[in-house]
Amino acid sequence: MVENKTTYQKWKHRLHEIIYEADTPAGKFFDVVLLIAIFVSVLAVMLESVSSIDAKYHKELNILEWVITILFSLEYIARIISIKRPKKYIFSFFGIIDLLSTIPKYLSLIIGGTHALVALRALRLLRVFRILKLVRYMGASRMLTRALIVSRAKIFVFLFFVLILCTILGTIMYLIEGNPSGFNSIPRSIYWAIVTLTTVGYGDIHPITPLGQFIASIIMILGYGIIAIPTGLVGAEYIKQTSKDKQHTNTQACTSCNAINHHNRAQYCYECGNVLNEYDAS
Amino acid sequence: MVENKTTYQKWKHRLHEIIYEADTPAGKFFDVVLLIAIFVSVLAVMLESVSSIDAKYHKELNILEWVITILFSLEYIARIISIKRPKKYIFSFFGIIDLLSTIPKYLSLIIGGTHALVALRALRLLRVFRILKLVRYMGASRMLTRALIVSRAKIFVFLFFVLILCTILGTIMYLIEGNPSGFNSIPRSIYWAIVTLTTVGYGDIHPITPLGQFIASIIMILGYGIIAIPTGLVGAEYIKQTSKDKQHTNTQACTSCNAINHHNRAQYCYECGNVLNEYDAS
Amino acid sequence: MVENKTTYQKWKHRLHEIIYEADTPAGKFFDVVLLIAIFVSVLAVMLESVSSIDAKYHKELNILEWVITILFSLEYIARIISIKRPKKYIFSFFGIIDLLSTIPKYLSLIIGGTHALVALRALRLLRVFRILKLVRYMGASRMLTRALIVSRAKIFVFLFFVLILCTILGTIMYLIEGNPSGFNSIPRSIYWAIVTLTTVGYGDIHPITPLGQFIASIIMILGYGIIAIPTGLVGAEYIKQTSKDKQHTNTQACTSCNAINHHNRAQYCYECGNVLNEYDAS
Amino acid sequence: MVENKTTYQKWKHRLHEIIYEADTPAGKFFDVVLLIAIFVSVLAVMLESVSSIDAKYHKELNILEWVITILFSLEYIARIISIKRPKKYIFSFFGIIDLLSTIPKYLSLIIGGTHALVALRALRLLRVFRILKLVRYMGASRMLTRALIVSRAKIFVFLFFVLILCTILGTIMYLIEGNPSGFNSIPRSIYWAIVTLTTVGYGDIHPITPLGQFIASIIMILGYGIIAIPTGLVGAEYIKQTSKDKQHTNTQACTSCNAINHHNRAQYCYECGNVLNEYDAS
Repeated sequence: MVENKTTYQKWKHRLHEIIYEADTPAGKFFDVVLLIAIFVSVLAVMLESVSSIDAKYHKELNILEWVITILFSLEYIARIISIKRPKKYIFSFFGIIDLLSTIPKYLSLIIGGTHALVALRALRLLRVFRILKLVRYMGASRMLTRALIVSRAKIFVFLFFVLILCTILGTIMYLIEGNPSGFNSIPRSIYWAIVTLTTVGYGDIHPITPLGQFIASIIMILGYGIIAIPTGLVGAEYIKQTSKDKQHTNTQACTSCNAINHHNRAQYCYECGNVLNEYDAS
Repeated sequence: MVENKTTYQKWKHRLHEIIYEADTPAGKFFDVVLLIAIFVSVLAVMLESVSSIDAKYHKELNILEWVITILFSLEYIARIISIKRPKKYIFSFFGIIDLLSTIPKYLSLIIGGTHALVALRALRLLRVFRILKLVRYMGASRMLTRALIVSRAKIFVFLFFVLILCTILGTIMYLIEGNPSGFNSIPRSIYWAIVTLTTVGYGDIHPITPLGQFIASIIMILGYGIIAIPTGLVGAEYIKQTSKDKQHTNTQACTSCNAINHHNRAQYCYECGNVLNEYDAS
Repeated sequence: MVENKTTYQKWKHRLHEIIYEADTPAGKFFDVVLLIAIFVSVLAVMLESVSSIDAKYHKELNILEWVITILFSLEYIARIISIKRPKKYIFSFFGIIDLLSTIPKYLSLIIGGTHALVALRALRLLRVFRILKLVRYMGASRMLTRALIVSRAKIFVFLFFVLILCTILGTIMYLIEGNPSGFNSIPRSIYWAIVTLTTVGYGDIHPITPLGQFIASIIMILGYGIIAIPTGLVGAEYIKQTSKDKQHTNTQACTSCNAINHHNRAQYCYECGNVLNEYDAS
Repeated sequence: MVENKTTYQKWKHRLHEIIYEADTPAGKFFDVVLLIAIFVSVLAVMLESVSSIDAKYHKELNILEWVITILFSLEYIARIISIKRPKKYIFSFFGIIDLLSTIPKYLSLIIGGTHALVALRALRLLRVFRILKLVRYMGASRMLTRALIVSRAKIFVFLFFVLILCTILGTIMYLIEGNPSGFNSIPRSIYWAIVTLTTVGYGDIHPITPLGQFIASIIMILGYGIIAIPTGLVGAEYIKQTSKDKQHTNTQACTSCNAINHHNRAQYCYECGNVLNEYDAS
């Protein structure tokens, strides 16, 4: 019985290694298959939304979707089985994404084939969120993410400042231009101010009076000038982060809490103290 | 009598603490209420401007506006009472904003309900400026503001340079394109040059002759290249500011001159020398 | 005779001081008058181009233009008289601007009032170049200019690289989209590629085929990514320049070669060795 | 025979010097002629695509194209003869460009004058790629290229992140706006999201519902904010590269492997160990 449990433990550990790590050939193969499945899946959802393609290949896309859904369901179950604390995975960002992008297809069976339901349509598009699973593979993005987290407060203040500016500028333009140019309400004018300040410039709404064009010019030059602020912020933070970040880490994940980015010579998980590589050493 | 005055002084000080500082529970509560009131107020002004919403809920929005106006009037009076030098507050940036955004509603009583008056309409929109009261809560923006103030001369020179460039380029395009493409006056051509150089690109006016498109291409590449200048300026100044700005400050405000950002262990106001926390110590 | 010459020399020196420097009250007054004259002049040219305004105030604008032209003519003559080496001024950037922006009005007398002539119309617009005289007053722009000059080779290479990229991308899009979408020649497709890569995006030409939109998306993301290059260049050069540029200079100009930005304690011109302030010391 | 071989070797070396280096007058002259030929060639391809010009000057452009094609063919043969390891050149980036841009004209003889063939049209436009030969002359771009190569992984991650973001945002907008505004499929909505996030903003597709405009505003502000990330990356890398890159190099190329950027005092090629300047020293 004890023997049996150890065998199960070893099998569970091997599964964890394949699914959560990328150091072994099996782990690498699993990752490649998953990557292809994600791409095919997202492509299928996209093609389904093109009415001419959907009309022609509706059946084929449906079968493909079922194959992918079952594949991801198996992956979801395997992830829960192989981890020591399943709850932590289930309620993690990726756990929720994995679940949300698998459920819609099953729900479509229950609710039935009524395509008219908007709620179901929205639900089915949740499958596009599978693309977020790719974030798992963006290891090089760690430094970027950290720089963003550090300067997050400043970026928030900046975007808040942009919003206040756009509210005031939008109100002024609403007063000057008025209905004929399309500035027929303050929210719409604020939308225009954001379109202009961020230098997007659709042209769906644009000033036609000389005074309106004058103020629009000021907004554009302002937007052209203040874009420098977040750039300076992130750039400075990034320079700081780069000088700090020199240590090398590997791809293995803790079998207990699933924390990654362990130091190459780490023996214990830095988050829960769990022993790393327990079966590798034996 | 002296006792009485001291009681009044204590009450005044407590009021000052609640309104101008955020370290006590009462102060925090006051801030939250004010924040909600500002958001609701700005939202009300926006919704009023949407004709379909105004037609349906005109009465409700009017009542809401009166409630908010009275609330802000009380805040304005409380701010004047609780501060040692009321004149300083009244003529400060926030004092003027507080007054200007409260008056319009009272004026609407005097002038009457004639909606046709453009002046009154403009006056009523002043209420949107209440959003500027939010700036009080953007503490993290200090460093940003300082970096902007330090590099303000250079940014001004840069924007001035952009304007000169746009004047020249606009005049050249007016000459080349002429009336058929919409370049029917120099100011309008300058407006186009600004729209192009800042990479906004509405498309309401755009060159149609090959020569005009060639020069427009040069302007775009120029604009794409010179956007680097303010970014470099602000970035460099920000890096300097960051290395200087390390000391910790708190949210208390001087009861005399209302200066903020005092050092944690400060005993006297750094601007007027007034004793800080005089009643806290007793 | 010697005495007389000295008096003339002194008068000439005073004139030089008034025109080229801004340290004396007379010099400051001259600068303010000139600034106003430039602004009024440029405004007049702009207003003249608006047909509705020109129809109404043609006479008044013509008189104003004559007053300004005579004023600038006097300034031009005074500048030539007061400087030791007039040729250097005449063939300098500002000398040519001063001459070019004064001549057109006199030429209009010779050629006559035939408004139809395009050449004359182009000539008259040269007066807008008077705005370049403002560059003289942008003292703070020295560091900016220097940073630009230092990184000029790299920016040129970058813009050249952008042009090559746009040529290739434009040709590919010409092949894919073809006539119906407006991509009816390679130069026009290159124009579109520049409009897209620089993120201007007029929308006058835009892809309509799925493949074209796919490639356009790649161009946009490319443009969004490579805008970082000149920003990094100028930013880095500016940081270098800032650390070098600490010495204080004054506004006086050499009476011989007109070089500016002399060190506060300079006795001789750094460019021609001429004695500075020769009459100030006496 | 040995003598003869040495003469041939000497002639081959001289040819190598003329074609691959720019230190001798003959080498400089060759470069200038090549530069002009490239410009004329690219211009000819462009003008050919303008139907009105092609109708008028079809014959002249054809003759010009033949002259240029023969010239480039001779250059291609000379490059192969003069280098020690022709295979390395033939399969290098520039070797392929040189071949691909010369072949189309000869193929047009074989396939015949049938202009209708799309494949031939695509082939003929390959001649535009001759502009890439200019990259050879962009020596100052070395540092830029190196900074790009170093930060390539991070930029790729960033662009990947932008694509994931656009996929999610595009899907959400497809759900909200739907057919009437032009968001009639997910790929099209993703195209719109890229157009918006990169601040290009054609305006061919734009939201019309209030909720859609609200989300579009968020996308714009996001795009305005995250443009800071690649800028910070490249800027930081460039600052690092600048401090490293101080050594001076010359324009001579190795006769064996064609590697350039040799140190001024280098005696041997840093890539293949071949003796540099073997005939210069004798």
